[in-house]
Amino acid sequence: MSKAPRANAVVGQSGGPTAVVNASLVGVIEEAKKHPEIKKLYGAIHAVAGIANDHFIDLKKLSSGKLKAIAASPSSALGSSRDKPTPESCAQILDVFKKRDVRYFFYIGGNDSANTLHVINKMATDIGYELRAFHIPKTVDNDLLVTDHCPGYGTAATFVALALIGDDLDNRALPGVKIDVIMGRHAGFLTAASVLGKQRDDDGPHLVYIPERSVSEKKFISDVDSVVKKLGRCVAAVSEGIRDIDNVTWAEKLAKKLGKNIETDAHKNIQLSGTSALADYLAELVKAELGVKRVRADTFGYLQRSFPGIQSAVDVREARQCGKEAVRLAMKENSGSVAIRRISNKPKYTVELFRTELSNVAEKTKTMPDEFISAEGNGVTDAFIEYAMPLIGKLPKTEYLGNHPKV
Amino acid sequence: MSKAPRANAVVGQSGGPTAVVNASLVGVIEEAKKHPEIKKLYGAIHAVAGIANDHFIDLKKLSSGKLKAIAASPSSALGSSRDKPTPESCAQILDVFKKRDVRYFFYIGGNDSANTLHVINKMATDIGYELRAFHIPKTVDNDLLVTDHCPGYGTAATFVALALIGDDLDNRALPGVKIDVIMGRHAGFLTAASVLGKQRDDDGPHLVYIPERSVSEKKFISDVDSVVKKLGRCVAAVSEGIRDIDNVTWAEKLAKKLGKNIETDAHKNIQLSGTSALADYLAELVKAELGVKRVRADTFGYLQRSFPGIQSAVDVREARQCGKEAVRLAMKENSGSVAIRRISNKPKYTVELFRTELSNVAEKTKTMPDEFISAEGNGVTDAFIEYAMPLIGKLPKTEYLGNHPKV
Repeated sequence: MSKAPRANAVVGQSGGPTAVVNASLVGVIEEAKKHPEIKKLYGAIHAVAGIANDHFIDLKKLSSGKLKAIAASPSSALGSSRDKPTPESCAQILDVFKKRDVRYFFYIGGNDSANTLHVINKMATDIGYELRAFHIPKTVDNDLLVTDHCPGYGTAATFVALALIGDDLDNRALPGVKIDVIMGRHAGFLTAASVLGKQRDDDGPHLVYIPERSVSEKKFISDVDSVVKKLGRCVAAVSEGIRDIDNVTWAEKLAKKLGKNIETDAHKNIQLSGTSALADYLAELVKAELGVKRVRADTFGYLQRSFPGIQSAVDVREARQCGKEAVRLAMKENSGSVAIRRISNKPKYTVELFRTELSNVAEKTKTMPDEFISAEGNGVTDAFIEYAMPLIGKLPKTEYLGNHPKV
Repeated sequence: MSKAPRANAVVGQSGGPTAVVNASLVGVIEEAKKHPEIKKLYGAIHAVAGIANDHFIDLKKLSSGKLKAIAASPSSALGSSRDKPTPESCAQILDVFKKRDVRYFFYIGGNDSANTLHVINKMATDIGYELRAFHIPKTVDNDLLVTDHCPGYGTAATFVALALIGDDLDNRALPGVKIDVIMGRHAGFLTAASVLGKQRDDDGPHLVYIPERSVSEKKFISDVDSVVKKLGRCVAAVSEGIRDIDNVTWAEKLAKKLGKNIETDAHKNIQLSGTSALADYLAELVKAELGVKRVRADTFGYLQRSFPGIQSAVDVREARQCGKEAVRLAMKENSGSVAIRRISNKPKYTVELFRTELSNVAEKTKTMPDEFISAEGNGVTDAFIEYAMPLIGKLPKTEYLGNHPKV
């Protein structure tokens, strides 16, 4: 590898925001300040859209107080984008990079973002323009390959676990069936996190449905019925991406049933969040099939990824370290994606960061491994809990009196 | 008033849970321990249903460590109920009270609960049975008369303010129209709290719709359009109870349009929470009428009232004090509802508690006063912000870089 060029750098944040994607940004800024090879560090406003439109801000100018506040703020401070770059826009981006002498491109995002970097890096190589392209992982879905887990997941999982602690106590107070629809298009990691706050044997969620295991309406109803018969109530955590036994998502089936058009993004992902039709449908199904009087459904929506003030300490630290590592790697390599390797889990959770090829991450999706999913497919295993617990924030211990001895 | 009898007491928690209703319960327990007039303190499991079924637990036995954990736990630790007592069930309740020598009845709840107390207290008086009946206010809706504000509101308002801080930053990152539907059947206080975390002039929510001001679809759409034209995005906070200009709720109109039955509770309140049809309808309306590409809607649902770990310090303290005050009042009065009077707001927020008649609170609803609502009816005034700010928890300062100078 040739010596790192002395030139400018661009950093952008792409895809759905998380509560720690700004910590990764701050990691990039802090590390970039240490390397004289990086002259200016441009922040691209709204990701690739900002690059194509030459809309940048100067990130090295930000004070350390400002950086601290940015790292604690949810969502993407630079603005984001869901645009999939076309060959034309990639060419445009390269033109901007050439014009501004940009030789380093750091992009914080998911597998689509890794692909964007891969494409642009390859185009640059083809025309003999040295552009070091590094991907910093970010997703609440935790669905990137190679890395043990993704920055953004731990805090979103904390939100989901907290929400279920409260929601389960709410359901104990006013018993019935409660259905919570949780983000996760292809991977069930975030939905699975709903169990992490369980403290008593009969705490909910009692059922967990993830995209990795198809489930029929019939099986869903019969599962709920069993729990209601046993406990007099039931809390079910359902991934927005759950699939019927023919492998079509319930969301798609429902949209067809309702005669609605399904919105897709530039990456052909269908819109699942920001609508609550699935939750309402499931609630009506339970009411109709089981005759349970009190059935409620909530869709956690965007709160899961952007709720402020509940950052997991591990998550925010790792997000920042991944940002720093990308800059360090760019001093000696041409491209790559930062990944996390778990060294030990108990008694002390430790990790190390390493580089993987962009092509190993680009456009690929990791799903929950079989050993994390219960045999019946409607719950998680202890192996999942051991995997996820070190990643989340502190959860409060709660009390409920309804099962105390009668007098 | 005659001397306080030496007898047993019952405490129950009724209606929708809050994040501090257990602090009120703990206040009752702590104060009851100080008064030898109260022999046993029975906790009624699931409120009036538990009383009628003679299902009680012994609350004086709980350790102080347990009480601390209970006070910090969201939802109703004793379980709740939405049953409206009938003359038959009231007679049954009195029978249980007589059998167990219960002369004190503390009930933590909203205006329906105050009415339950009022009815049972009157029945007891009519048959010459001394029963001291005290209401401890609780509601996230903040809609009780007489009291300055209700325990439960401050923490729910904190949740809503936090949610909007994150959601507005999310909408900045991926601009479009975002609609957040917030609890509040008749009163807009909780929806109004959505503005409390605003930090920059162009922060959302940009529009706030509350039940106190009717709004037509046309006006709603034109408001959203104006904001989008000005800012390129729009975040709207909408109460689940918003009404059309003919004063019928949008939720009811929508249910009729969809040919759905509307669920009502025993108090004839229609079910608004636990379904997200209104949010989805509003999103589709904006898409269809304005052609905005990215329109999303979330319904905050039950998370608003039961999310753990974000109790407002003022709210939890006042909830506990109201519980204690009810017991103190019962030593010298026959019945009443505890109310909060605000003594000063600035520079130091101070309150005092006082007693009001049950009939002043029973079955009555307070709504937002005119001076809290903007002239156009789609926002709140500084007077509301001054009223609400002392009640909520600390909100984080956030940073956004999209409006920094271009380079």
